[in-house]
Amino acid sequence: MAPQYAQSLRFRLPPLLFFLQTGFIVVFIFYVDIEQNVQTKQHAFNNYYSEFQDVHVMVILGFGFLATFLVRYSFSGAGFTLLVAAMAVQWAVILNGVESMYDRGKIRINMRSLVVAEMCTASSLIAIGAVLGKTNPVHLLLIALLEISGFVLNGWLLQTFLKVQFLNTIMLLHIFGAFFGLMLSWVLYRQGSEQQHEKEKIDRKTGLFSVMGTLFLWMFWPSFNSVLVEVDHLDRGRSLRAVYSTYLALAVSAVTAAGFSVLTSPQGKLNLFHIQRCTLAGGVAIGVAMSAVHLPWVAMAIGFAAALISTLGSRYIKPLMLFAFECHDTCGVLSVHGLPGILGWMVQLFLQIADSDDLTTAVRFAVFHICTLLITLSLSMSLGLITGFLLKCNFWRPPQNKKCFDDQVFWEFPHLSGKR
Amino acid sequence: MAPQYAQSLRFRLPPLLFFLQTGFIVVFIFYVDIEQNVQTKQHAFNNYYSEFQDVHVMVILGFGFLATFLVRYSFSGAGFTLLVAAMAVQWAVILNGVESMYDRGKIRINMRSLVVAEMCTASSLIAIGAVLGKTNPVHLLLIALLEISGFVLNGWLLQTFLKVQFLNTIMLLHIFGAFFGLMLSWVLYRQGSEQQHEKEKIDRKTGLFSVMGTLFLWMFWPSFNSVLVEVDHLDRGRSLRAVYSTYLALAVSAVTAAGFSVLTSPQGKLNLFHIQRCTLAGGVAIGVAMSAVHLPWVAMAIGFAAALISTLGSRYIKPLMLFAFECHDTCGVLSVHGLPGILGWMVQLFLQIADSDDLTTAVRFAVFHICTLLITLSLSMSLGLITGFLLKCNFWRPPQNKKCFDDQVFWEFPHLSGKR
Amino acid sequence: MAPQYAQSLRFRLPPLLFFLQTGFIVVFIFYVDIEQNVQTKQHAFNNYYSEFQDVHVMVILGFGFLATFLVRYSFSGAGFTLLVAAMAVQWAVILNGVESMYDRGKIRINMRSLVVAEMCTASSLIAIGAVLGKTNPVHLLLIALLEISGFVLNGWLLQTFLKVQFLNTIMLLHIFGAFFGLMLSWVLYRQGSEQQHEKEKIDRKTGLFSVMGTLFLWMFWPSFNSVLVEVDHLDRGRSLRAVYSTYLALAVSAVTAAGFSVLTSPQGKLNLFHIQRCTLAGGVAIGVAMSAVHLPWVAMAIGFAAALISTLGSRYIKPLMLFAFECHDTCGVLSVHGLPGILGWMVQLFLQIADSDDLTTAVRFAVFHICTLLITLSLSMSLGLITGFLLKCNFWRPPQNKKCFDDQVFWEFPHLSGKR
Repeated sequence: MAPQYAQSLRFRLPPLLFFLQTGFIVVFIFYVDIEQNVQTKQHAFNNYYSEFQDVHVMVILGFGFLATFLVRYSFSGAGFTLLVAAMAVQWAVILNGVESMYDRGKIRINMRSLVVAEMCTASSLIAIGAVLGKTNPVHLLLIALLEISGFVLNGWLLQTFLKVQFLNTIMLLHIFGAFFGLMLSWVLYRQGSEQQHEKEKIDRKTGLFSVMGTLFLWMFWPSFNSVLVEVDHLDRGRSLRAVYSTYLALAVSAVTAAGFSVLTSPQGKLNLFHIQRCTLAGGVAIGVAMSAVHLPWVAMAIGFAAALISTLGSRYIKPLMLFAFECHDTCGVLSVHGLPGILGWMVQLFLQIADSDDLTTAVRFAVFHICTLLITLSLSMSLGLITGFLLKCNFWRPPQNKKCFDDQVFWEFPHLSGKR
Repeated sequence: MAPQYAQSLRFRLPPLLFFLQTGFIVVFIFYVDIEQNVQTKQHAFNNYYSEFQDVHVMVILGFGFLATFLVRYSFSGAGFTLLVAAMAVQWAVILNGVESMYDRGKIRINMRSLVVAEMCTASSLIAIGAVLGKTNPVHLLLIALLEISGFVLNGWLLQTFLKVQFLNTIMLLHIFGAFFGLMLSWVLYRQGSEQQHEKEKIDRKTGLFSVMGTLFLWMFWPSFNSVLVEVDHLDRGRSLRAVYSTYLALAVSAVTAAGFSVLTSPQGKLNLFHIQRCTLAGGVAIGVAMSAVHLPWVAMAIGFAAALISTLGSRYIKPLMLFAFECHDTCGVLSVHGLPGILGWMVQLFLQIADSDDLTTAVRFAVFHICTLLITLSLSMSLGLITGFLLKCNFWRPPQNKKCFDDQVFWEFPHLSGKR
Repeated sequence: MAPQYAQSLRFRLPPLLFFLQTGFIVVFIFYVDIEQNVQTKQHAFNNYYSEFQDVHVMVILGFGFLATFLVRYSFSGAGFTLLVAAMAVQWAVILNGVESMYDRGKIRINMRSLVVAEMCTASSLIAIGAVLGKTNPVHLLLIALLEISGFVLNGWLLQTFLKVQFLNTIMLLHIFGAFFGLMLSWVLYRQGSEQQHEKEKIDRKTGLFSVMGTLFLWMFWPSFNSVLVEVDHLDRGRSLRAVYSTYLALAVSAVTAAGFSVLTSPQGKLNLFHIQRCTLAGGVAIGVAMSAVHLPWVAMAIGFAAALISTLGSRYIKPLMLFAFECHDTCGVLSVHGLPGILGWMVQLFLQIADSDDLTTAVRFAVFHICTLLITLSLSMSLGLITGFLLKCNFWRPPQNKKCFDDQVFWEFPHLSGKR
């Protein structure tokens, strides 16, 4: 059987890569330009490159190494993340620039467009988390491109028809990515595969690599939540409030996740999966709720609630999803990104209503806010379903059940030592 | 026996976490606010966030992964560091703000308060290094909170009664943490445990993870030593001098540690423990001596001497401490932080005296400087003793001797592959 | 045999380290000073420290962990890189400052001099990549010092006699390092060693550590290519163009390397070596060509071509070099740094000629540009040969063939667990 899979990558992956890459270069020849006059915003700019770097580290290294936790799938986890991200940022730069292309004839590359592209990429990597190990790189590339297209479309719809602020639409990336990935995983679920997943394990060392990814996400998340606040609003105070809020939410989130992990454990022990992922839930929730959070203790309470939901979700909802709905969620994106994202959305709703001066404003905001969520959910889930059905066909040569979660299918091991 | 330990965490760790976390949130509700007007210091600020990030990376990732070196204790090393740090920064923000609360009614969160909080956390993580692997997370949390309380008290005493500059008191963190941890480890020492510590080993991979932690500390140490110089003095030149001095001291330190490691080895080989830790001694010593160092070669000479002391200490004093004083120092904090810290203190004394214009100033400085060290040493050692006796009681359920240095006691391994 | 090797390090490494280190400190006492007045360039400076940090991370962590891929040589890979880099930066600071010492009597340490020193160090680490695992640390130190001397001399020759811009000479570091290393490896090749290299293997975990090094290089490369543009030209726009170009070239490079890796694989699988190294080829080529690249698609095309050359080189030229020329290139520096560097040089030539207004300028530029390459190649190759012959003698006690690629020769394993 090995040659079949070997062939499948050879005649599918390189053509797809070269076709897309050549296409992107052609688009860049005609439509993309580097922004030249940067002097005017010099001041806001100076600090901005290092925050862009933090986001870059989160997407490439953070998500990449978070995906290395499976004992026999760690090359794929890190390698495919790099491959997908390298492709996805180019696609996201193009898609996000389409509107400005109509206005000015050219897509401009600047720090802001790269940061936005990295965030769209993060959204697609969240979706990929749900199907990690059960797909081949061709799948992953198509998922990423379709997910980013849907996410950009979603943002455009919300900004155009509901007048939602850009910053609020981009932070829906967690919700969009999670539900897209969930539907995808549900469609791609194959009967009888669950007992085959004997390779879905971690070992001490891959666990540590994954913790490293977690820590980079945890440490740099304040930059992720604050970078666009600064660029779009040129308001250093507001951007720093985002930094402090995220920092506090994450600190509380780490403590709370550890607490509930021990509390819900039959043996009263910590679970590495919770430490790896649920500690990040606070960053997700505060990111979505950001524009309404003004006090430090609110950020901390959000961090607490997000970690609670996320830990309980990982412990109880994740197995339930598998057995009740036949939806296998490798990285637990529902509990880590989906539910905390919706929590953040709810907190934003309550805080905005509480802040409103009169009832009309409050109701008006509530209606718009609820529509925002409904549109995002329905678009992400329907696109996830469509993508799933598109990828279900055998043309893409999915890995066999018994070859899931295994690097051996995709990577040469000629120089590999006997001790694997 | 396993259930007993499982239970011990369940009925002790989560209640403690939730009690402390809820308490912190309540304090934040009433007393903590985010600093709003940041425009005035805009300039100094811009560069400041990325230096804060460097310190954050050092504390979370640097100390976290430095603690992963034990072959069966690496989840705990990285995980408990995250847990302790997430709790400790909140406590340090509160404690450091108490004084400003009396003045202005509120504790202000700003970049400076977070950097100071991270440095207090670093101090507690140094103390924890001495007892790593022989304690449970409940111990670690209590140690961190008590150590930070003592360290903040020490700084307040020195600033109030001896008029020591804030920057000089905060850099005593290495000395305070090391001697606190040492006393703690001495009190907690249990007869007959040394032959049990057969798990106190590294392997090739945990050694590498630990080297990664070392490198992050080594690379970002210039930020650690310079960040508060810049904020407090708004003097970019002085802050850069701190950067260059630390950089040179660390470079020399790495070279010297390697040299003495080979020289003192019976087989003429390098010792990974020395490369991991003694290369950092230069950063410790120069940090303490910083305010008196003006010339690059002085920084280099300090780096040389610090690495020499640290390597000899690791090679000869560490085993001596164990057999003569029954004090087991897992991470060698005496040699890595304690002795180089005292070296830095001595260099500062000599340089300041040499710089003095008249004898009166010199004598006055020397008296104050010696009092500073004596107060710090006595406070850290007495608090370490008290903390040790507090934690010695069986109420906290310390891990059994044969369960020391083992993740198995604290972590679920349900998804873990057979090959551990 | 073990004692012989043990002795060899003891009586050679520490004396060399202490001699060099003491010598450097003495030079620093008399000739080196820290730059004091930084206020004038304050603005350009603010952002500059974080870019310096990025370069520092690339050199220490990036190159260090990239060198950990060999299964039994990972301590040496990371540890020797740290040791060599710590020594080499001091030497580079001194050498680069010689000219300014004639002018002003003192070598000034500032951010720029440290960045330049780190880049010279990177050049020597590239050369070391070719002989990794077949040398002892004494060799590595001598190689680094000689390579840096040659590289600084080369830059001085080009700037003085051909009036090449400093920025263009420093970016030749890839070409200089690669061909120096190649010649060195050719001279040091020992008959019959190839069948002995059974330890020249990776395993799953060392592969991942190495991927981590790759990712740090990949993520921070935009800083590497842009930092000196900003400092020397005080032109933020041009520096950002370098950032965007490098970013795009690297993204395309990652995609292309993956594509050709699968395409040239007999089994149609990815090769980890290509993902680790050939993804970086775009950064090398764009770095050399930087000053002539103005459009984003040109950067992408360069990234494509560089990854193509690099992947084909790793697949076909590397084994050819071994069997035809008896030149064993451990890290494949020819394919990763040498050929992409020459590609970048060629692109720069063509773009500059295409940009020229008249034929005279074009021809003049071409002649100077070709001389630049020829001088660099001949100097690097002849110095590589000389260094090789110097190190070939048994006085330096090279590791035996069967001890190559093994940490055991150089590192104590007393605390090491049985499971290695």
